[in-house]
Amino acid sequence: MNKVIVLYRRPIGKPVLGDFRLNIEEVPVPDDGEILLKTRYVSVDPYLRGRMNDAASYVPPFQLNKPIQSGIIAEVADSNHSGYKIGDIVSGNLVWKEYQISSGKGLQLIETPDIYLTANLGVLGMTGLTAYLGLTEIGVPKPGETLLVSGAAGAVGSIVGQIGKIMGCRVVGIAGSGQKVELLKSKFNFDEGINYKTNVDLDKAIKTACPDGVDIYFDNVGGKISDAVLKNINKHARIPICGAISLYNETEEESGPYVQPLLVRKSALMQGFLVSDYSEKFSEAKKQLFNWLKEGKLTYHETIINGFDQIPHAFIELFEGLNEGKMIVKV
Amino acid sequence: MNKVIVLYRRPIGKPVLGDFRLNIEEVPVPDDGEILLKTRYVSVDPYLRGRMNDAASYVPPFQLNKPIQSGIIAEVADSNHSGYKIGDIVSGNLVWKEYQISSGKGLQLIETPDIYLTANLGVLGMTGLTAYLGLTEIGVPKPGETLLVSGAAGAVGSIVGQIGKIMGCRVVGIAGSGQKVELLKSKFNFDEGINYKTNVDLDKAIKTACPDGVDIYFDNVGGKISDAVLKNINKHARIPICGAISLYNETEEESGPYVQPLLVRKSALMQGFLVSDYSEKFSEAKKQLFNWLKEGKLTYHETIINGFDQIPHAFIELFEGLNEGKMIVKV
Repeated sequence: MNKVIVLYRRPIGKPVLGDFRLNIEEVPVPDDGEILLKTRYVSVDPYLRGRMNDAASYVPPFQLNKPIQSGIIAEVADSNHSGYKIGDIVSGNLVWKEYQISSGKGLQLIETPDIYLTANLGVLGMTGLTAYLGLTEIGVPKPGETLLVSGAAGAVGSIVGQIGKIMGCRVVGIAGSGQKVELLKSKFNFDEGINYKTNVDLDKAIKTACPDGVDIYFDNVGGKISDAVLKNINKHARIPICGAISLYNETEEESGPYVQPLLVRKSALMQGFLVSDYSEKFSEAKKQLFNWLKEGKLTYHETIINGFDQIPHAFIELFEGLNEGKMIVKV
Repeated sequence: MNKVIVLYRRPIGKPVLGDFRLNIEEVPVPDDGEILLKTRYVSVDPYLRGRMNDAASYVPPFQLNKPIQSGIIAEVADSNHSGYKIGDIVSGNLVWKEYQISSGKGLQLIETPDIYLTANLGVLGMTGLTAYLGLTEIGVPKPGETLLVSGAAGAVGSIVGQIGKIMGCRVVGIAGSGQKVELLKSKFNFDEGINYKTNVDLDKAIKTACPDGVDIYFDNVGGKISDAVLKNINKHARIPICGAISLYNETEEESGPYVQPLLVRKSALMQGFLVSDYSEKFSEAKKQLFNWLKEGKLTYHETIINGFDQIPHAFIELFEGLNEGKMIVKV
């Protein structure tokens, strides 16, 4: 018996449980050159929401009544493939099934599954690469500069802040609860944290936390939080735009102050990116992140929820802002 | 007798003649190490409007009852400076006076005043450098790409389009009259022109004129025109933001659709700039522009208005959209 979670209905606004359905099917049998994978850990991420819309985007939309795909760590349960043996642990962009067949294409063998295993879905996976490459390639941090991170307690944000500190920046994070702000400082080495829910005048709170202005704004959220940040950027500011979670669920196009006049006044750069834009730098970046992890310079935080059936629930929780760090489902 | 034009009152919205005043003062006498300059040509430019506000910007605001400053070509009328002799022609950022004293600081001696003299206020001056450096440093055009230019019939826009063609792009311009659109194609070598005033569905007009999408959008205007362009950008688009003339006169902060989600979806770059950001490249860039001019690859268009007293009027005309190419007052 093999459990499968499919997209049953395209969410309107915020996703709800009824948008997903749990199906049961046979456990498949691997052909020649194939392996059978048993899912161990499933990553749920905000960007998946975009693929649930029936709209052209940077990746094709998920199809209705087909399983959803995300970052997954799996164990080789059976192998007719010379490159894999039973018990090997791999990561890849796989579907939400307990068991699935793979040709091995796109899989990464995890060579050290005994240490930092789930980190391969986070700081050593796409999340860490997104943080590292967005910050270093677009943000280009210099010692003494001020780095402000929105969505700072999230998976990407918490890594961005730590890397900023390693690179000598003053680092300030914006997050959505007192507990998260506390975590930024106690666990992730941020200099300051701002709770955007309790600071009614966010502009002023940013001015106080960033007395020298903002040189790099790593933007994970967009919307009104970013409007307030932009009032505080310095000349020659760099703004990597990693995501706009506050806008993912909007059904109408949202408006805000035009950024163009500000970008001219500040000679500032704003650049959207996908981690895949920098794929030729992945291996070098992963090495750097692994070394920082081993040296204790980098830490990570996960929220792990148990049970395959809980995947849709874990995904929906992302939009409640309740998770801290990377959200992972253990199967 | 020496005429001087001062800022009498800060404009509210669009500037009017009453915001300026013509004063009369003595012709000054140069001290040791100084020269007396007689103004010959005065450049009036949209960016001056920004300095008329009492707001922090990239340059300090003009002071009330003090003369306004802009790009000027002047003749040395008297000299107590070893570096200049009577009759020398110079360009520089000078004040709106018929005669003025200079220490020579910041002046460029024009070595070939017999050819392309007024071009030193345009294609060989800050305007041409702005077009060339914004396009090459941020836009980075590649042969076969589509370059869309807004404010295309303006001083900067008309040069940007021509350079795009020299570099092998398909070039489309947006302008505000049928006459201007005609000029883009007949004089400035653009492939297509769009009249934003007669095309009610600008988005569709852009789609038709740019069937392969927009790779580089050189943005001189901002506002709703840019909103329509952004719907048509390609993956990895580059958007140099040179100015936002449509917003210079706004007294309230204007709103439009958030650009951040789009920049992420398209891995696109939007960068504001001032030509002074690239000052170390001026001399190389000016050489390139001069060569293209001599080779007949680059042409320029000026609207010349006669009479020192007409400077405020010429400036106000910029915001009526009536000028074609660079607006210059001949004294």
